[in-house]
Amino acid sequence: MRTFPPLDKAIACFSKLPGIGRRSAERMAMKLVSDQTGLLKDLITSLQGVDEKIGCCSRCGALTSRDEGPCRFCTDATRDGSLLCVVEEPSDVLQIENAGGYRGRYHVLRGKLSPMLGIGADQLRLEPLALRLKSEPIKEVILALNADVESDATASMIRDLLAGTAVKLTRPAMGIPAGSGIAYSDAVTLARAIGSRQPF
Amino acid sequence: MRTFPPLDKAIACFSKLPGIGRRSAERMAMKLVSDQTGLLKDLITSLQGVDEKIGCCSRCGALTSRDEGPCRFCTDATRDGSLLCVVEEPSDVLQIENAGGYRGRYHVLRGKLSPMLGIGADQLRLEPLALRLKSEPIKEVILALNADVESDATASMIRDLLAGTAVKLTRPAMGIPAGSGIAYSDAVTLARAIGSRQPF
Repeated sequence: MRTFPPLDKAIACFSKLPGIGRRSAERMAMKLVSDQTGLLKDLITSLQGVDEKIGCCSRCGALTSRDEGPCRFCTDATRDGSLLCVVEEPSDVLQIENAGGYRGRYHVLRGKLSPMLGIGADQLRLEPLALRLKSEPIKEVILALNADVESDATASMIRDLLAGTAVKLTRPAMGIPAGSGIAYSDAVTLARAIGSRQPF
Repeated sequence: MRTFPPLDKAIACFSKLPGIGRRSAERMAMKLVSDQTGLLKDLITSLQGVDEKIGCCSRCGALTSRDEGPCRFCTDATRDGSLLCVVEEPSDVLQIENAGGYRGRYHVLRGKLSPMLGIGADQLRLEPLALRLKSEPIKEVILALNADVESDATASMIRDLLAGTAVKLTRPAMGIPAGSGIAYSDAVTLARAIGSRQPF
């Protein structure tokens, strides 16, 4: 569709967001340009707020308000400093917090090894992780990474980093998701769930 | 998910876009806040460009660059001024232009009658339409509106507006879409297509 340069640019930006194809991006941009309720201005203001006010904690890499300094997870004294949960993205921290139950600290890698995208070990926040392992009383590292080849390679690298230390390395249990059942599980999930069966 | 005020606001704005649910909006906002390639800044710049540089033509209501004055459809002397295509949204003009073949002018209503949303006749661009019908040499009005109850009510109102004038009122043909067939057509479409059958 031939449109206008700023509109084309907005469509191109929207297309880069997860789950948004060319057609959805066009519909979103068209809605914003036709809308008469001030949605476009609201979106601009909120994105500027995100850009200006939200940053990443210098220690753990989780999202934080820029004017707050280290994040609430790093500064909360009631959290268990011996437990460190390593995740790929800042959004993963919010997901885990939302689930509730975890009261340790976090470390965000900001990515995973990906030779395809040219992301090597030095682009990830591994050096800060090594420093924290030396300076903080960490006894257990939980690798809450995703379940693909790149994440597995990243997990292996962290295992090598921890080799020779007394730090315990764990990962979240794999198994049948809540609300699902045997009939809906794929073969790999089911095999893993049976392999890691637990006392009833 | 508990996040940060500007991020929450951005998620709320994204949720209002067509086809975007709460979960998609969260994923989009999270991608923007974690992204390290400058996507957030690019999106802000392009949306500001849309806000500042794209407006609606004062005559026909189609999208136009603010610094250009009346739009390219209104000023193009090679277009047939006796033919006026009435559409609901500025994006419909781009869709029809993209399809090619139409060389008349446009008139954008910017909406349709919707008692549910409190949109009455005075919120639509009907008065400019009446003025154009008086001042321009329009011989045929093509009602390229959507196929729902509100659009039908809007079409009826325009028919009333044209009552007593010599202007011909038409609407695009309804029938089996290109690339489809009898087996894939719903009953209403098929009945209309057979009803409006054409010489072969």
